[in-house]
Amino acid sequence: MRALATDPAARRLEDDAAIIEMGGERLVLTHDTMVEGVHVLEGQDPADVAWKLVAVNLSDLAAKGAKPVGVLISHMLGSDDHRFIEGLEEVLRTYDVPLLGGDTVRGEGNRVWGCTAIGRATHDQVPSRGGAKPGDAIYVTGPLGAAMLGFEALRDGVERDSSAYRRPLPLVDEGQALAPHATAMMDVSDGLLLDCWRMASVSIRVAFELQSAAIPVADPSRFDDCIRWGDDYQLLFTAPPEIDLPVAVSRIGTVVAADRPQLRLDGEILSPEQGLGYQH
Amino acid sequence: MRALATDPAARRLEDDAAIIEMGGERLVLTHDTMVEGVHVLEGQDPADVAWKLVAVNLSDLAAKGAKPVGVLISHMLGSDDHRFIEGLEEVLRTYDVPLLGGDTVRGEGNRVWGCTAIGRATHDQVPSRGGAKPGDAIYVTGPLGAAMLGFEALRDGVERDSSAYRRPLPLVDEGQALAPHATAMMDVSDGLLLDCWRMASVSIRVAFELQSAAIPVADPSRFDDCIRWGDDYQLLFTAPPEIDLPVAVSRIGTVVAADRPQLRLDGEILSPEQGLGYQH
Repeated sequence: MRALATDPAARRLEDDAAIIEMGGERLVLTHDTMVEGVHVLEGQDPADVAWKLVAVNLSDLAAKGAKPVGVLISHMLGSDDHRFIEGLEEVLRTYDVPLLGGDTVRGEGNRVWGCTAIGRATHDQVPSRGGAKPGDAIYVTGPLGAAMLGFEALRDGVERDSSAYRRPLPLVDEGQALAPHATAMMDVSDGLLLDCWRMASVSIRVAFELQSAAIPVADPSRFDDCIRWGDDYQLLFTAPPEIDLPVAVSRIGTVVAADRPQLRLDGEILSPEQGLGYQH
Repeated sequence: MRALATDPAARRLEDDAAIIEMGGERLVLTHDTMVEGVHVLEGQDPADVAWKLVAVNLSDLAAKGAKPVGVLISHMLGSDDHRFIEGLEEVLRTYDVPLLGGDTVRGEGNRVWGCTAIGRATHDQVPSRGGAKPGDAIYVTGPLGAAMLGFEALRDGVERDSSAYRRPLPLVDEGQALAPHATAMMDVSDGLLLDCWRMASVSIRVAFELQSAAIPVADPSRFDDCIRWGDDYQLLFTAPPEIDLPVAVSRIGTVVAADRPQLRLDGEILSPEQGLGYQH
């Protein structure tokens, strides 16, 4: 749920998950805020909101290979709080994560929710976004665009499964399994292209070369949309191509050496000004 | 910043600070959300908002005798983000606390901000709200009502120091010094009477007997308001009366045995239905 702050100083708040040392363990901390009408539809079932709020934070932990320890939830009270609590209990039970605490507030206008998730790093080398090396393969754990199709179905009241948008499934186990092998990893929250660009930008002197034919999408007739829309929470990572990975993934490209960060799709250079993805 | 949720299930989100074990250390986690027009005045300087947002969370850590490790901040973007960042840097520098991360979002209507603070417990026995014992003395670290006077000055545009409301000073060092001695401790965020009532309610079979003449207030002519208004962030705690405390405090009453939780002021029983304090 990262906005692109216009004030450079405010961008400091959009850092990757934080890691702190604590009694010989590494603690991974992440916070995401969701706004009604921005990250979820206005009037969407609060049970879905609660699910998604927790899921997107667990997804951030997954990208660090971290095992969840618990969550703190901030909830703006409304008329249907019992639905929020039901969805919260459902997602916490599904992922076996305790509710540690939080806060409730009253407010007017669009509702706002926050979640802080805490996890333990399970691997010595906690993957960051910035470790991609020339020669690495670029992988993604599953198809992009399913959340977009779900969003449209829900928005338009079409009879089609919208669960990919409403109830994303964070890849907590997969993240822990992949962490020892990944040179860089993140979850695809804001669109594949934008997130590839971000990963290339913070790695050292690399370009990301993607092959469109290799990118799995939920609707091939809308390929361009699928790789720009976010909210899928697949894991995007780089690893040496010779490594036999413990999770079924799609190889979508290769990291190459470059003077400056670059993103190429089928050889064509894409720049962030072209609108690579969804900026919340 | 605790609301009193109408839905009983939602009240679970209003728990005290969370404590988790981590590599032999105890980690204290707290989250507070602030809403423009509810916890701060509409249009208030965002630098003050950032200060208060961090300060109220550090105050929650102080009540646990915890040493701050860092904060995660959620900020709703606006036109004056640089002021928010300036206030944030000021409070973090003052209390020597690192910014670990956070999130920024766009939204409409009243702005909402969140802070998660992480601390390390400094004492084996982390004080809770529920440990008051018959015979304990009841203490408060300083006068109540200063934030109320500051709020009124700011709201009415009166030339008077409003810093107690705008820039509360969490008693981080005092909390750590008092933790080994306190049988129960909390910060006075929602008014002395309400917070005394809460402490009595979660302790076992006790009543809190307060003496009004002993309660320090910022404006004696408005005693009743001073002990009901919140936002002062003094520490309220109980301890055996024979202990020589390392911090200058005021003794305001005594814990006595009782069949059910009770709050008495100069012998008169006060009930929560009477509006003991500020319910955000």
